[in-house]
Amino acid sequence: MNDTERTGSLPLPTIRRYPLYLREIKAMISRGDLHVSSAALAETLDLDPVLTRKDLAMAGVPGKPRRGYPAQELENAINRALGWDSVTDAVLVGAGSLGQALLGYAGFEEHNISLAVAFDSDPAKISLTFHGVKVRPMADLPRLVKRLRIKIGILTVPSSAAQACADALVAAGIVAIWNFTAVQLVVPQGVIVQNVDLAQSLAVLSHAISSQGQA
Amino acid sequence: MNDTERTGSLPLPTIRRYPLYLREIKAMISRGDLHVSSAALAETLDLDPVLTRKDLAMAGVPGKPRRGYPAQELENAINRALGWDSVTDAVLVGAGSLGQALLGYAGFEEHNISLAVAFDSDPAKISLTFHGVKVRPMADLPRLVKRLRIKIGILTVPSSAAQACADALVAAGIVAIWNFTAVQLVVPQGVIVQNVDLAQSLAVLSHAISSQGQA
Repeated sequence: MNDTERTGSLPLPTIRRYPLYLREIKAMISRGDLHVSSAALAETLDLDPVLTRKDLAMAGVPGKPRRGYPAQELENAINRALGWDSVTDAVLVGAGSLGQALLGYAGFEEHNISLAVAFDSDPAKISLTFHGVKVRPMADLPRLVKRLRIKIGILTVPSSAAQACADALVAAGIVAIWNFTAVQLVVPQGVIVQNVDLAQSLAVLSHAISSQGQA
Repeated sequence: MNDTERTGSLPLPTIRRYPLYLREIKAMISRGDLHVSSAALAETLDLDPVLTRKDLAMAGVPGKPRRGYPAQELENAINRALGWDSVTDAVLVGAGSLGQALLGYAGFEEHNISLAVAFDSDPAKISLTFHGVKVRPMADLPRLVKRLRIKIGILTVPSSAAQACADALVAAGIVAIWNFTAVQLVVPQGVIVQNVDLAQSLAVLSHAISSQGQA
């Protein structure tokens, strides 16, 4: 997905910046601020003030001249725009080291994502609980995902199992996959895949260091 | 960093695709293949064959007409281009749930990144060992990072501590930061920052689902 594409009703770069604004707005509210100016937000986050003004305007809360936006209303509007204003259920497939870690990721609770259950093919992991989430056998996936009407599937399985697990999730009714595997998943139209490939990110870092060493 | 930028000697999109090729080439070698064709790689990975041909050419291994590239030489060349052909030492700062998980990330060993030590400010975590890596107090960071000539710092601390920890890493001689916090770090020129913001990624997913619901 490149930065000129849109998902849903907002431009992708705006969606990516919304969590940054949210954190700052929350910090301002907790310091007792009742209003937030786009100029102050832009300065704190080292962003172009024109960009920030446009981003905030898209949240649909009218600002007041010289005072800025009502802080709490703006926080609520951004949460609503991101779908973080109501609880969305998710499951995780692959309770290995990365999967176990993600089950403890504080961002899920913070953003109203509720992890209902995890699945794994390793019999030794079944019935274990990580960060309060129980691991179930893969065979239970279709039934449980359907019954609980789960929307999000988080994929942290080995590459070799990635496509098959994605297929199982989609067949069970999942509409969005957070893909931590290196596999470019093939999914039907309408299913959203968001990729987080740590090896690709690490490659950029390693290459830059090794090039420095040669210079 | 956008896709037209370069880090080091290769274009960024090429660097990002190299780990994908590597996995496929390794799989082909383990199946007994002696040669790899760019067309076959492109097809397996669902990439533009012209793009893949250019990417592989940049690795500097001459291909043979009709046979393709010698597989093992190509694997070695890509590893060399990414700086994954020799061991690079890294430290992790912030041994919370995400930090502990990353300590168990198999990609480090696979790509010759050796995690020497982790640091945390929580006295309860000091001297604990996660996935074979010992946690040390923050006060030891400057001395240890300098003495061990560490190149990479992995940052998994809360946002409020991120810039101060980055400053400490840079002061101790770190040249590259893998930043898992949401903070846009300010670092001196020459220090590389690679950001992995899970909340930004999750925002794209959540927004897409909530927009679908409205449609």
